[in-house]
Amino acid sequence: MAAEVFPAVSGERFAATYRIGGDAARARAVAEAICLEQTVEFPRALLPPGGIERDVVGRLEALEPDGDGAFRARVAFPVEDTGFELPQLLNVVWGNVSLFPGVRLVDLALSPALVAAFPGPRLGRQGLRARLGARGRPLLCTALKPMGLPAQALADFAGAFARGGIDLVKDDHGLANQPFAPWRERAARCAQAVADANAATGGRCVYLPNVTAPAGEVRERAHAARALGAGGLLVSPGLTGFDAMRDLAADPDLDLPVMAHPAFLGSYITSEGTGIALGVLFGTIMRLGGADAVIFPNHGGRFALTPAECGEIAAGTGEAAGGLRPAFPVPGGGMTLDRVAEMRSFYGDDVVLLIGGGLFEGGDPLRGAQRFAAAVGA
Amino acid sequence: MAAEVFPAVSGERFAATYRIGGDAARARAVAEAICLEQTVEFPRALLPPGGIERDVVGRLEALEPDGDGAFRARVAFPVEDTGFELPQLLNVVWGNVSLFPGVRLVDLALSPALVAAFPGPRLGRQGLRARLGARGRPLLCTALKPMGLPAQALADFAGAFARGGIDLVKDDHGLANQPFAPWRERAARCAQAVADANAATGGRCVYLPNVTAPAGEVRERAHAARALGAGGLLVSPGLTGFDAMRDLAADPDLDLPVMAHPAFLGSYITSEGTGIALGVLFGTIMRLGGADAVIFPNHGGRFALTPAECGEIAAGTGEAAGGLRPAFPVPGGGMTLDRVAEMRSFYGDDVVLLIGGGLFEGGDPLRGAQRFAAAVGA
Repeated sequence: MAAEVFPAVSGERFAATYRIGGDAARARAVAEAICLEQTVEFPRALLPPGGIERDVVGRLEALEPDGDGAFRARVAFPVEDTGFELPQLLNVVWGNVSLFPGVRLVDLALSPALVAAFPGPRLGRQGLRARLGARGRPLLCTALKPMGLPAQALADFAGAFARGGIDLVKDDHGLANQPFAPWRERAARCAQAVADANAATGGRCVYLPNVTAPAGEVRERAHAARALGAGGLLVSPGLTGFDAMRDLAADPDLDLPVMAHPAFLGSYITSEGTGIALGVLFGTIMRLGGADAVIFPNHGGRFALTPAECGEIAAGTGEAAGGLRPAFPVPGGGMTLDRVAEMRSFYGDDVVLLIGGGLFEGGDPLRGAQRFAAAVGA
Repeated sequence: MAAEVFPAVSGERFAATYRIGGDAARARAVAEAICLEQTVEFPRALLPPGGIERDVVGRLEALEPDGDGAFRARVAFPVEDTGFELPQLLNVVWGNVSLFPGVRLVDLALSPALVAAFPGPRLGRQGLRARLGARGRPLLCTALKPMGLPAQALADFAGAFARGGIDLVKDDHGLANQPFAPWRERAARCAQAVADANAATGGRCVYLPNVTAPAGEVRERAHAARALGAGGLLVSPGLTGFDAMRDLAADPDLDLPVMAHPAFLGSYITSEGTGIALGVLFGTIMRLGGADAVIFPNHGGRFALTPAECGEIAAGTGEAAGGLRPAFPVPGGGMTLDRVAEMRSFYGDDVVLLIGGGLFEGGDPLRGAQRFAAAVGA
C-alpha cells in the first residue's frame, strides 16, 4: 500500500439511522457493512493502518431492537466524507445501501458543518409568509392545468386565481416545454396575468413556473422566470437531482422561494421495509435541497398515504434539523374544497393547501378560488 | 373554459407498460387513472371538448392478466407530452405513478422521435471496444480506492492497473471532492499516471474520473477531465439526475465514454411489486441517459440480485430499444478473481468485468491486474 499522508479531519460527524430487517446477527452484519460500503467500499482487513479506519470509515454507534423483527442501527460518518457537496452527502447516506434489501433510512441527524454548507430553504415558513403578506392562516395554492391548453388560456386561469385570492399559483408539474404551451411564452404570459391581477386587487399572489428542465437549462429558466416577473419556482428534484434545486435556493441572484414536487420519488416510499422514511425524504432531504414548500400526496386523495404518514411528513418539514428553516408541508393530490376544514384541523395553520383540478368544478376558476379563499378566511 | 387553439400533433406515440397488482377492476381503474395522472392530471369530465382528450391524454391500449393476481397495462402517450426533454419523458412514464402502491413500470417502448431527441450512448459497445482496441473478450475494469488515500497514492494504483492490463480504471463512485484527494488534483494525477503507463506499454487504458458533482459543476468537471487527459467519465445519475448524464453524452466537445453507477437508485428495484423493472431502468433509461456502460450489483456479491435478475439487466442493455446503441453491462459489487470464468460463462464476452477491492488482495495491485488480465486472455 502506498505511503499515507493524511490530512487533518475535524472529528465532526453526522449520523444516519437505518432500520434493518432480520435477526440480530443479520442486523449487525448489515450495519457493519454499511460503515464500509458508504465510505471506503473496501475490505476492512485490507485498509492501510492508521487514519483511514479511524477518520473515514463510518462508525456504528448504536444497534437496538426496533420491534417486528427489525433493528435500528445508527452510523456516524465524518463530515469530510461528503466533500461538502450535496450529491456526495446523499451518496454517503443512501448511495449503495439503497441496493440492500430490507434496509430503510429512518433518520438523518445533520451536524453544524453540513448545515453551514447546505443552509436549506431561502425563506422558510416565516419568510414566505412575510413575502405573501399572509399570517395566521394556511396559504392557498393551485396549479395551472391541463396540459394541452395554450399559454394564454393558462394565463387567463392564473389571472383568475390571483384575483380570487390564491397565494401561490404554480404550473402543473407536467407542464414543461411542450409545443402546446412552450415554456417561455407560458411563463411570460402567466407572470404578466398575475402581475395585472395583483395591480388590480392590491394582492401579493405569486406565480411559480415549473423549471424542471434539462440539466443545462434549470438555472437558465429560473433566471428567465425571475426576469419575467415570476415570484417563485417549482422543481421536481426526483427528475433534476436534488442539487439542481439546492443550486436555485442558494443562488444570490434569484431570491425566489422554491416549491418541490415529489414526481419520480415515489419509489423511495412505496415499500415499507426499504427506501427512505417520509420525514427524512420530505422533511430533511427536501430542505437540504432548499425547498421552502414541499408537495406530497395527502391522505384520502388520489394516492395512498395514511393520515399518520402525512403527519410524519408535516412534522419532518418543521423539525429543527440542525437549524434548517422549517418548510411548508403542501398536501395535495386530488384535494377538493370540501376537504379544507378537515385539512386545516389536521395540519393546523402552518400549511399550504393545494387544490388543483378541484377549483375547476363548475367551470369557473375565479369562483373556485374565491370559495377556497373564503373557506380559510383569506 | 378558455377557447382552445390546439397545435398540430404528429400522432406518434410511445408506450409504457405497467404491472398492476390486484383484481381486474382495480387494474382497470389504476390503468385509466395513469392515462390522466401522467398527462393532464385533471378529471376527464372537466376536460374541454376536442383536442386535449384525443391528443394529450394517455391511451390504454391493452390490459391483460399477468399471473399472480396482477395485470399488465400498456399505455400509449403522445410524444409531444414529453416536450422532447428527458426529465419530462421520465415524468410522463414514472412521475406521479411512482407514488401509486402496487404498480411497477415493466416496459418502455420508445418511438422514433424520442430516439432522435435522445440518441443514447455516444459509443456503445462497438465504439468503446474500438477505442480501447479490445475485441473478442470481456473488458476489464477496476476502481481506485479507498476513500481517504491522497491523490498520488490513488494515481500510483491507477498506473499499476494500467500497466497490469486493465482497460478501464475508474474512480470509486464515492470519490468526489473530499479533502483527502481533491477532485482536480486526483483527476490530474491519475490521468497522468495512466498516460505514462500507456506510453510505456503501448496500451490504451482509459481513466474515468467521477464527475458526480453539484449541479453547476458536472459539465465543468467533465470538460476539465478531458483537458487533463481522462478518457472517460463516471456518473451516478441517481444523484445528478439522468439528464446531467445525458448532457455529457450529447456534448460535442467532450467525446468521452460514460459509465453509469447505480448509487441512490436501489429504491427503484428493491421492491418487487413497485418501482421499475431492472431491464427498463438499467437498460433503457440508463441508455436514454447516454451510458455506454452500466454498473450493477452482480449476483453472489455484496448485494442481493439473483442470476435471473442480472440476466435481465444484461439483456436490457443490449436490446434494440428503437435504435439506441447497446451499452455494456458492468456486473460488480464484491467480485473477485475466482469469479472471472463463471462470469464470462454467464454474460459472454460482451461485458465489462468490474473487480475493485478484489484486486488488492495480497497488497499488490499490479499483480492483481495482471492476474485479472491473464484470466480473460487480455
